[in-house]
Amino acid sequence: MPNLEHDDEVLEKLESLGDQLIEQIENQENPTIEKPVRSRSNVEFDEDNELLRLGDSMSSRYFMNIGHARKFMQTIMIASKCKELINEGRTASVRELYYQLKRTVPGLDENTLEDQDESDPVIVDLETALDVLREHLHLIAEPKGRLFGPLTIEDEGDQINCLQLGKSGLGVPSIVDDYKFVEHDADYVLVVETSAMAARLVEEDFHKEHNAIILSAGGQPSRGVRRLTRLLHDRLDLPVYIFTDGDPYGYYIYSVLTAGSMNLAFESKRLATPEANLIGMTMQDIDAYGLENVTENLKGKAPDQSGGPTADYKRAKDMMGYEWFQKDAWQQELQTMIDRGIRVEQQALAANNLQFVAETYLPEKINEGNFLP
Amino acid sequence: MPNLEHDDEVLEKLESLGDQLIEQIENQENPTIEKPVRSRSNVEFDEDNELLRLGDSMSSRYFMNIGHARKFMQTIMIASKCKELINEGRTASVRELYYQLKRTVPGLDENTLEDQDESDPVIVDLETALDVLREHLHLIAEPKGRLFGPLTIEDEGDQINCLQLGKSGLGVPSIVDDYKFVEHDADYVLVVETSAMAARLVEEDFHKEHNAIILSAGGQPSRGVRRLTRLLHDRLDLPVYIFTDGDPYGYYIYSVLTAGSMNLAFESKRLATPEANLIGMTMQDIDAYGLENVTENLKGKAPDQSGGPTADYKRAKDMMGYEWFQKDAWQQELQTMIDRGIRVEQQALAANNLQFVAETYLPEKINEGNFLP
Repeated sequence: MPNLEHDDEVLEKLESLGDQLIEQIENQENPTIEKPVRSRSNVEFDEDNELLRLGDSMSSRYFMNIGHARKFMQTIMIASKCKELINEGRTASVRELYYQLKRTVPGLDENTLEDQDESDPVIVDLETALDVLREHLHLIAEPKGRLFGPLTIEDEGDQINCLQLGKSGLGVPSIVDDYKFVEHDADYVLVVETSAMAARLVEEDFHKEHNAIILSAGGQPSRGVRRLTRLLHDRLDLPVYIFTDGDPYGYYIYSVLTAGSMNLAFESKRLATPEANLIGMTMQDIDAYGLENVTENLKGKAPDQSGGPTADYKRAKDMMGYEWFQKDAWQQELQTMIDRGIRVEQQALAANNLQFVAETYLPEKINEGNFLP
Repeated sequence: MPNLEHDDEVLEKLESLGDQLIEQIENQENPTIEKPVRSRSNVEFDEDNELLRLGDSMSSRYFMNIGHARKFMQTIMIASKCKELINEGRTASVRELYYQLKRTVPGLDENTLEDQDESDPVIVDLETALDVLREHLHLIAEPKGRLFGPLTIEDEGDQINCLQLGKSGLGVPSIVDDYKFVEHDADYVLVVETSAMAARLVEEDFHKEHNAIILSAGGQPSRGVRRLTRLLHDRLDLPVYIFTDGDPYGYYIYSVLTAGSMNLAFESKRLATPEANLIGMTMQDIDAYGLENVTENLKGKAPDQSGGPTADYKRAKDMMGYEWFQKDAWQQELQTMIDRGIRVEQQALAANNLQFVAETYLPEKINEGNFLP
């Protein structure tokens, strides 16, 4: 059962929330919970730290307000259940939490929760009000992703040497804060977009020969993979390289890993790794590695077509406007993608030969420090 | 690099395919590949073995047929590449295979492959023509799923004790045929539909206390999980229990795990485990465990409504017609579901308390042998 280093801190926050409400009730004030506004108008890019965060706008939820009372009750109910989870050393999925709390309120013809669409946003309210990650409230998300490489992790008392897990690898769980990094012999962390590319690198023994911790994301990285990337960077002081397809979706993955996402801006400071770089695929790679015949066309209409830009073109154009894509190298990359109207996948590197990515492409790019910032 | 026990057998099959073509060419015959018809008309339920399979209808692909020539060339090209993969001890994703083979045919203004939609069905042609799994051709699929429990697996020379992988677990890869089951202390295999329920059971130490190998499927089981279930059953002679939501989708998962699927009928004899039973959730569980207040309504229209049955109701009704759901217990289960118009999720068991599923529900059902066949 997990015992997180943040447990005491989070319990304290939950208790002060309760104390504050009791005080308000005793003073015959209207019980109130304050939390940051989460709408886009209150999302800002923190230039010093290079990540998205919430601004200073706050909103209040009042118990004695007919529009707030139900959500107020739900917020306290969830806070109380999370306190119980932490004290018991248990975790719960948000679905389990919903089932645990759904009941008919005694004396009323009303349920505490009608469906999970009611409890999920209240969990986010609580995360932002307390300024904690949901994982620190012992709530788990869908796990995804695998880890391979020269790192020994202690998890629930088990010492796991991640270099001795064959081609299977360690399943990255939802909560990784309780991982202890016992020892390692790694030079860097490589976050890989597709499972198939990660499998290729493992098959070629890349993690062994290059002392690389490979995180196989399997598409958009899970919260567990994002948090683990950050913890490996912070605790082990390892550089992080991100390896995605050379297309707007791949660069969006890079963006979420480094700066966070607009919708979850309040979590970026704990989930994002601003110092991470993109190793590829880039438009320059196409020429440098002779991939001209294995590119694909961008989807949608180019900016100069009538009704354009749409789809991939629009995504690339939008990215060019984001504050965290203002560096020259990124502006040039995105403009080239739009001008040429093409994308290039990680697995296109197989057009040369299967081992090319492990024997040539990645070692060259890393040795030359040939990254997008 | 994987060395599968089937390698020699598959190489032999690939070579006889080649020998046969050479013979036909030398005899000035039209080079021909024979393969079973895959359309539904040729899918049948094998009652003795209780799984779906292809019937005896065959079709031929001719080189000298203007409608076949392109696919014929692609089939041979892919067969040749798979032979190379087996000889090199490498695997490839179907995407890599596509990139490896895509090129302009010398002297023609024609590509070998236009996109992956061309190569994927040809891979299936080859699987059925040779009567092998694609994994035996060294082609990998998207991996999904995790394993926890008292089992030591040898994978790529690493000995992995799956009881010492904390709450993370072993990532189930695409190819599991090369796993060696070194030793185990397991009483059964439990395949769990949702990752969250598997995480619950691991948190409660269910795998340790009940000597259970837990396979966390994360939704519809991957090919790797299906094959691994079958191998654990065959090689270790362990009973297999399937634990899904009590709804048409959960029962479809059961159906695919035990009998196979219509679309991939040719693979059932290697991927399905007909002897596996469904442990729950069932309609009987709702009453037996007091879950009346945490059921959900089936989606769609009931059979007696105008325009019905649709959605969940239609799926349940369709299942009642399948040959492999003809056992009385299943007919009764599906009819009850339709009559009551409800479904019940695994995680609804949390309504009692979080540990209820591990401490009461599963042990009771297993001790009593209270399964659906």
